[in-house]
Amino acid sequence: MEDFRFVNKTDIRFGKNHIDAELHDAVAQFGQNVLLTYGGGSIKRSGLYERVMKALEGLNVTELDGIEPNPKIDSVREGQRLAKENDIDVILAVGGGSVIDASKVIASAKFYDGDAWDLVADHGVKYRSKLDQLPVVDILTLAATGTEMNPGSVISNPELNAKIGTYGPNTPAVSFLDPQLTYSVSKWQTAAGSIDIFSHLTEQYFDRAENTDISDGMIEGMMRAVIKWAPVALATPDNYDARANLMWASTMALNGLVRSGNVNGWTVHPIEHELSAFYDITHGVGLGILTPRWMKRALSAATVAKFARFGRNVWDIQDADDQVVAEKAIQATYDWVKSLEVPTTLQGVDINDETNFRAMAESAVEIGGLDHEGGYVNLTVDDVVALYQASMTTDGFED
Amino acid sequence: MEDFRFVNKTDIRFGKNHIDAELHDAVAQFGQNVLLTYGGGSIKRSGLYERVMKALEGLNVTELDGIEPNPKIDSVREGQRLAKENDIDVILAVGGGSVIDASKVIASAKFYDGDAWDLVADHGVKYRSKLDQLPVVDILTLAATGTEMNPGSVISNPELNAKIGTYGPNTPAVSFLDPQLTYSVSKWQTAAGSIDIFSHLTEQYFDRAENTDISDGMIEGMMRAVIKWAPVALATPDNYDARANLMWASTMALNGLVRSGNVNGWTVHPIEHELSAFYDITHGVGLGILTPRWMKRALSAATVAKFARFGRNVWDIQDADDQVVAEKAIQATYDWVKSLEVPTTLQGVDINDETNFRAMAESAVEIGGLDHEGGYVNLTVDDVVALYQASMTTDGFED
Repeated sequence: MEDFRFVNKTDIRFGKNHIDAELHDAVAQFGQNVLLTYGGGSIKRSGLYERVMKALEGLNVTELDGIEPNPKIDSVREGQRLAKENDIDVILAVGGGSVIDASKVIASAKFYDGDAWDLVADHGVKYRSKLDQLPVVDILTLAATGTEMNPGSVISNPELNAKIGTYGPNTPAVSFLDPQLTYSVSKWQTAAGSIDIFSHLTEQYFDRAENTDISDGMIEGMMRAVIKWAPVALATPDNYDARANLMWASTMALNGLVRSGNVNGWTVHPIEHELSAFYDITHGVGLGILTPRWMKRALSAATVAKFARFGRNVWDIQDADDQVVAEKAIQATYDWVKSLEVPTTLQGVDINDETNFRAMAESAVEIGGLDHEGGYVNLTVDDVVALYQASMTTDGFED
Repeated sequence: MEDFRFVNKTDIRFGKNHIDAELHDAVAQFGQNVLLTYGGGSIKRSGLYERVMKALEGLNVTELDGIEPNPKIDSVREGQRLAKENDIDVILAVGGGSVIDASKVIASAKFYDGDAWDLVADHGVKYRSKLDQLPVVDILTLAATGTEMNPGSVISNPELNAKIGTYGPNTPAVSFLDPQLTYSVSKWQTAAGSIDIFSHLTEQYFDRAENTDISDGMIEGMMRAVIKWAPVALATPDNYDARANLMWASTMALNGLVRSGNVNGWTVHPIEHELSAFYDITHGVGLGILTPRWMKRALSAATVAKFARFGRNVWDIQDADDQVVAEKAIQATYDWVKSLEVPTTLQGVDINDETNFRAMAESAVEIGGLDHEGGYVNLTVDDVVALYQASMTTDGFED
C-alpha cells in the first residue's frame, strides 16, 4: 500500500427535497452575487428552475445557460466574463457533470485575466492551481461523473479536437444530491451514467499497487451495487432506491477515497475521451464499448489473479481456475453493458471507418502516459489502434 | 435509503515518516502555543517523542502526559486547565484512541468555564455543540477506534462508573497515519483493535435501513480486509501492508461514510461500555466476546436475509439455505475472534459473577435506547442480562 494524502471538504446533502429548506443558506453563506449555471431547458420543464429561483430570493442572480454535454470552452469563457462583470461570490451549478465541470473552471477563471483555455490545456497545473477559486454549490441531476465531490473537470475545445481534464484546488463546497431529480433521466443517459460510474471503479481497481484491500473491497461492493441497481433504474425510472444507490455510487466512486494508495493513472478514459472529442459520442457509452476490449487486452499471466478476484468478488463466478474466472468476468461485463440497452460496438454509435484511429491513439497514449506505466498495463499506439479496431465488431464476445 | 448529510474535513496524511517533514507546518498553521498530549512512556521508549519535539522546534509546547486507556475525566480536566493557562492554540495528540479522545474534549473544554464532565455527561448535545473547539492534530499509534477522523470521544468517570460518548462539532484537523508506528503494538492490543474495527463495521452493517447497498458493499469489503490482515499483523508485527490495511480500516470504518443512510444506533458498544466501566477490561476484547452472542440473539426470520448476506459476502460461505449460512457466519465470527488469541468468554477476562449484570444492562438499554428501536433489533433489560450470562461460557459455539 502506497502513501497518500486524502482530504475532501465537500458538504453532502443527500436525500429528498433538501434544496427547498437548505439551498438559500448553503449559497448565501458565501455572498450575495450568485452565478446560476445550467444546461438546456430541462430544469425549466421539470419545475426545478422555479424551486431554485424561489430558494434564491433576495440574492442577486446572474444566469449562464446552454452549457452542453461535453462542455465547451466557450461556455467557460462566457462564465468567466459574467463572473468578472457581476462580481460573482458563488456559483450555483444545476445539472449533470457538464454543468458542474464547466462551473468549477469558471470558479477559477474569475481570477484569471487570460484565455480560460490556459486553465485547461495544462490540466490546471501551472496556472489554475495558483489561483483562488469561487465556491461552487451544486444540485446534481445526473448520476455519473462524480464531479459533485471532486476537483476535476473535463472540458472540450472543438477547434483543437481536444477534451482535457483539469483540476482546481477545491472540490464543490456543497452538493445537493436528490435522487428524485434523476427520475426523468432517459434510459440512454441512465445507462451511460451507470457505465461511467462502473468505469471509474474499474480504472481504480485495476492498479499496479498491491495489497490495497480496503480500496479494493470498497470498490467491489460499489460495483455490485451499480450492477444490481442500473437495470432497475432503467426498468423503473422512479425507483428511489435504484436512483439513490446510483447517485451515491457516482459520488463515492470518484471523490478520491478509493484511489487511496494507488500508483498509476487511468487507461480507458483517455482512450474514450478521443472518441468523444472526434465524434461527440456519449462518454459513458464509449466507455461501455471500450472497457471489455481493454480487459481482454490487459488480461495476462501477470494480471490474471486480479481479474479472477474481480470475477469472484464482483460477479460471483465460482471456479477454481483463475483464467476461467477472469474470462467469464470479462464476458459478464460485456453482457451487463449490453443489458443496459446501449450499443456494444463503435459501429453501433456510427463510427464506421478507421481514419482517425491512429491520431486518436497517439493523443490518448501521450495524455495518459499509457506506454510508460501511466496505466495498469502498458499500451503502445499500435495497441490502442488495435483496441479501437477490436471495438468495431462483436468479435471475441458471446453476443 | 434514508437521507443523510456527510461532511468530514480531516486532512489525512497516510504513510511512512510524513511527520518529520510535515508535522511542523501542520501544527503551526493554527498557532504557536501547542498542547502536546500523550499516554505513558511508550512514545519516549520508541523515539517518537524526540521526533515530535524536533518537528515542533520553535513552537511553545506544553505537555500533558499520563492519559490512560479508557481515558478518565480527570485527564480532560487537567488538559482544560493547561489549555486555559497557556493560551493554547492547537492540540497535538500522540497516541491511540484514548489520547485522541481526551484531546478532542479538551479542545472544547478550553472554551468552557464549568466542570469538563458537563461536556461529556449529555453527549455534548447541550453545552459542547455550542462551544468553539481548538484544532486537534494527531499522530495515531494504534489502529482501532477511528477517532482520527470522527468527532466522537468516549470518556470514563470512575466515580460514577460511567463511560459515555460525547461529540464535538469538529473532527481532527490533520491526522498522521503511519502504519510503522503500530509495529510495536502488542498482540493483545492488535487483536483488540482489529476486533474494535470489525465491531464498528457490524454495528453499522446490521441496520434497519434497507437497500443501503453502497454502504453495505463497502463494509463487506473492509470486513474481508480486516479478517485477512489481523492474523498477519499478529504473526508478523512489522508487516507493513497488514498494519496499513488495519490502520486505514480503522479510519474508514468510523468516519461517518459507511453509516450514510442508516437509521438506528449501535447495540454491542453500549453493552460493552458497561463491561469496561465496571471492570476496566479492554474494550475490543469485550466486543469480541459479546458480538457473536449478540448475533445469535439478533438472528430471526426477520433478520436472516441480512445475516446470510453477511455470510456469503464476508465469509464466502456457499449454501443455498439462508439460515445455514447465517449460523455458519456467526460461528465464523466466533472462530476469527478466537484465532486472534484473546478470550472468548467473560470468565476469560476474570468476570466470574453476575452481580452487576442487571445494573449494567439497565444502563446499556437506557443509553442505547435498545428497547425502543435504538438498535438493529430491540433488546430489553432481561435480554441484555441474558446476553451477559451467555457470554460467561462457550455454550452454543463450537470452541
